[in-house]
Amino acid sequence: MPRFFEDKYWYMQQRKAAMDLDKKEIIGNSIVLNSIEEKVNQILLAAKQDEIDNSYKNGKPFPPAMHFFEGKQLIEKSKVFQMIKIMPKGAALHLHDCSMVDINWLVYNVSTMDNTYMCTDKNNVMHYHFFTTPPSDPNCVWKSINAERKASKNVTLFNQKLYDSMSLVVDKPHIVYPSINEVWVKFLQVLDVANGFINYAPIFSAYFYEALREFREDNVQYLEVRGLLPEVYEIDGTTHNKTWVMETYKKVLQQFVKDFPDFSGGKIIFSGLRFWGNDQILDEIKMSIEFRQKFPEYFAGYDLVGQEDPGKPLLDYLDDLLYPSNLQSPVDLPYFFHAGETDWEGTFTDVNLFDAVLLNTTRIGHGYAISKHPQIMKMIKSRNIAVEVNPISNQVLKLVDDIRNHPASILLSQNFPIVISADDPAVWGAKGLSYDFYMTFMGMTGKHADLKVLKQLALNSLLYSAMSSEEKFRAIDLWKQKWDRFLMSILSNEEINMIG
Amino acid sequence: MPRFFEDKYWYMQQRKAAMDLDKKEIIGNSIVLNSIEEKVNQILLAAKQDEIDNSYKNGKPFPPAMHFFEGKQLIEKSKVFQMIKIMPKGAALHLHDCSMVDINWLVYNVSTMDNTYMCTDKNNVMHYHFFTTPPSDPNCVWKSINAERKASKNVTLFNQKLYDSMSLVVDKPHIVYPSINEVWVKFLQVLDVANGFINYAPIFSAYFYEALREFREDNVQYLEVRGLLPEVYEIDGTTHNKTWVMETYKKVLQQFVKDFPDFSGGKIIFSGLRFWGNDQILDEIKMSIEFRQKFPEYFAGYDLVGQEDPGKPLLDYLDDLLYPSNLQSPVDLPYFFHAGETDWEGTFTDVNLFDAVLLNTTRIGHGYAISKHPQIMKMIKSRNIAVEVNPISNQVLKLVDDIRNHPASILLSQNFPIVISADDPAVWGAKGLSYDFYMTFMGMTGKHADLKVLKQLALNSLLYSAMSSEEKFRAIDLWKQKWDRFLMSILSNEEINMIG
Ligand SMILES: [Zn+2]
Ligand SMILES: [Zn+2]
Repeated sequence: MPRFFEDKYWYMQQRKAAMDLDKKEIIGNSIVLNSIEEKVNQILLAAKQDEIDNSYKNGKPFPPAMHFFEGKQLIEKSKVFQMIKIMPKGAALHLHDCSMVDINWLVYNVSTMDNTYMCTDKNNVMHYHFFTTPPSDPNCVWKSINAERKASKNVTLFNQKLYDSMSLVVDKPHIVYPSINEVWVKFLQVLDVANGFINYAPIFSAYFYEALREFREDNVQYLEVRGLLPEVYEIDGTTHNKTWVMETYKKVLQQFVKDFPDFSGGKIIFSGLRFWGNDQILDEIKMSIEFRQKFPEYFAGYDLVGQEDPGKPLLDYLDDLLYPSNLQSPVDLPYFFHAGETDWEGTFTDVNLFDAVLLNTTRIGHGYAISKHPQIMKMIKSRNIAVEVNPISNQVLKLVDDIRNHPASILLSQNFPIVISADDPAVWGAKGLSYDFYMTFMGMTGKHADLKVLKQLALNSLLYSAMSSEEKFRAIDLWKQKWDRFLMSILSNEEINMIG
Repeated sequence: MPRFFEDKYWYMQQRKAAMDLDKKEIIGNSIVLNSIEEKVNQILLAAKQDEIDNSYKNGKPFPPAMHFFEGKQLIEKSKVFQMIKIMPKGAALHLHDCSMVDINWLVYNVSTMDNTYMCTDKNNVMHYHFFTTPPSDPNCVWKSINAERKASKNVTLFNQKLYDSMSLVVDKPHIVYPSINEVWVKFLQVLDVANGFINYAPIFSAYFYEALREFREDNVQYLEVRGLLPEVYEIDGTTHNKTWVMETYKKVLQQFVKDFPDFSGGKIIFSGLRFWGNDQILDEIKMSIEFRQKFPEYFAGYDLVGQEDPGKPLLDYLDDLLYPSNLQSPVDLPYFFHAGETDWEGTFTDVNLFDAVLLNTTRIGHGYAISKHPQIMKMIKSRNIAVEVNPISNQVLKLVDDIRNHPASILLSQNFPIVISADDPAVWGAKGLSYDFYMTFMGMTGKHADLKVLKQLALNSLLYSAMSSEEKFRAIDLWKQKWDRFLMSILSNEEINMIG
């Protein structure tokens, strides 16, 4: 079917039409920028294109093509990153309870407190705990952290050792973590180590408050947190139940919003482990129904978490997950399933996408495998199910190396309802949402994708949150004020120089 | 929008329907297998699923997730690979003239001939040439290869050195080739080194004959080769022009088909370098028009090759490329453009996809970036433009690490017209098409994707070739006979044991 072109002019017309049609489908393309936004957009695009050309043409390292541990410092020097940092990004909808706060906070503000103890077990794994007097354990001998620190020859090194015990960050990540299984073993271990500090009752609320503070500092105004609702301990060894944990979250959120009225709050998504038995999951679902009545403003719904490939498929829990809708008077318990966080097409992990959608999940966590499933793509579009994309998580946890190969770039190019989140920023040394927004904007959208993409991603995070309509209305109103201040601060000379 | 399920049975019905719809869109799904094919399919699927589960469940290394240099030996042990090897795969439609033959053939059959000379230049790069008496060059002192080999203490090591000078294969590819630019520098260099042997007139035809032989041995029955139509030299220093090169290709193809009547032949796609000036490209296009009249059965059309990111965009050559259609009596010169062989969205390289399609390319070489462009996806589907996917090439040349992240998996899941090819198998130590078919089948389609996928890929390679209808008819007829023999050989016990 040969085509002949009358002339070059006609060719260029066809070309422009095709490229415009292509661009028209990208996320955010229904947005019309006002004249102030247009000016900011020019600054943003110039910075983005400079940075891309610096690599594309001049061969300089490109952070989205590098492992985050190796590219992080480069990102921090980026003008695009600086702009993203001060941009109001809306909500972080995919976070986990014990990995939201800079680990330095645990090292410098928590491990230095009275009554902190550490021990090293026979596998050379460290453990932390608060005690008045530590128990005697020959397999893991508890020592006062402050005494040990004092006795150490090098305090900086000592603190670094504490930091490393709770972090995945290493010098040569490709060598230390050759594949997904190694990195997950270490990942679960470092979370567990940090929990020794976090699950101490006074720290538990302080940690959550600090999380809100750090995200607010990164210009995020609302969080939805997957929480295990763990057993929280007091210094005398007594422990608290899940209701206490929810009460604590509620109190902290109330206090934080009181302290910072420009913050919209947050909600908890209770998360069971996808390795547990059916009875336990059913118990948690029943508890979730109860919590939703008891904490209507703070409890969003239920999810299952843990490494998905070795975990049980959602189908194994079908009876339990259908329980709320099969009650005599059906109850609406929103689900927020992690699903399809895998490179393995056609496996149980991959098929979880079908169950997540059919079980009417409100959003999908990761959904990394979605683009390989035309039917899932159709269903999430027609059902308006948002996909929570966490680019750095997927890279660090070994699904993809070069972020430019992240399959969500396909979803972004077709305006799927995407929200960007950070999953477990603390363990990979990120903070807030800005790093993940940077990866998305620089690595997963093209050279010409602009402020409209960022604005839509911020708006999506509020629109696809579990907030009530009224809460959303107030949050978006607040966001708009922040957005206008952001635009002005970019345009004001001081700011331009600051970030230049 | 909560949904309630009457019961589990109803849920499972919905689930099956959604999964069936999803699978219905994959490449090859219109094929209905006969009872013999069904039996072979069971053997194939059992082997595929075993191999996947061995990694997914037991954590064994998975070749598509590894660099080809590191996974090659594992692939060769795979039962799926053994089956793919003996399967008639149809045509190889994306190959380059000087990288089709196992480099060992150059080392053992060519470098050992009389009159072969080598020299090492000041950059420590080796050069090879045939001379009766070598010229004196102080910057690169020519020495007899056979004399050097004799004088060397270790002939194996000496031959290995020759091999390495023409190959990209190394022990630690991730360290030796940290990014696309380093690997391309080395890639162009090793091709250049091999050309010292290949472009000697008697070897030039022998090389092409050997290429046909090796691909036939890998159960490929037809080739389309991108050729630079290089300057070929005689021992006395005289050189041949492009017409001589085309004559030679024609003669070798005729001889080969005479020697092996079960082979369907081949065609040449003349390929300029995307770094050249407009005049040169226009000259080549005029020459292509001439060659198409002179060698109607052997000359397929025109393409532009070379690393695409630093190369000139197709748009730079627009006037030249439109020349055939803008003639008083327009001429149909088929194009086979390499386009979108990049991770860089929105750049010139990426935009080449639009020009390739609008210039009515017959097929797209690589098209790696296609899935990020909804409009390109629509256009290639409606215009029925096949995409030539070369998985190992894209991995070795640093577009993607884990083949499971190759974006063509999306195109495969939606039945785009895909053909699988090998690009430059010799330089990465592959042979024929089987390795690339293995990567595609194991890494780019799901656990349940079966013989229908492989059959469609083989058929596509004939259907989307540049053969005339009559040639296609004969080739497909030949292929069907081969296919039936393949089925029988899988089902015969001896074969099953052989590959078990
Ligand atoms: Zn998560
Ligand atoms: Zn090529």
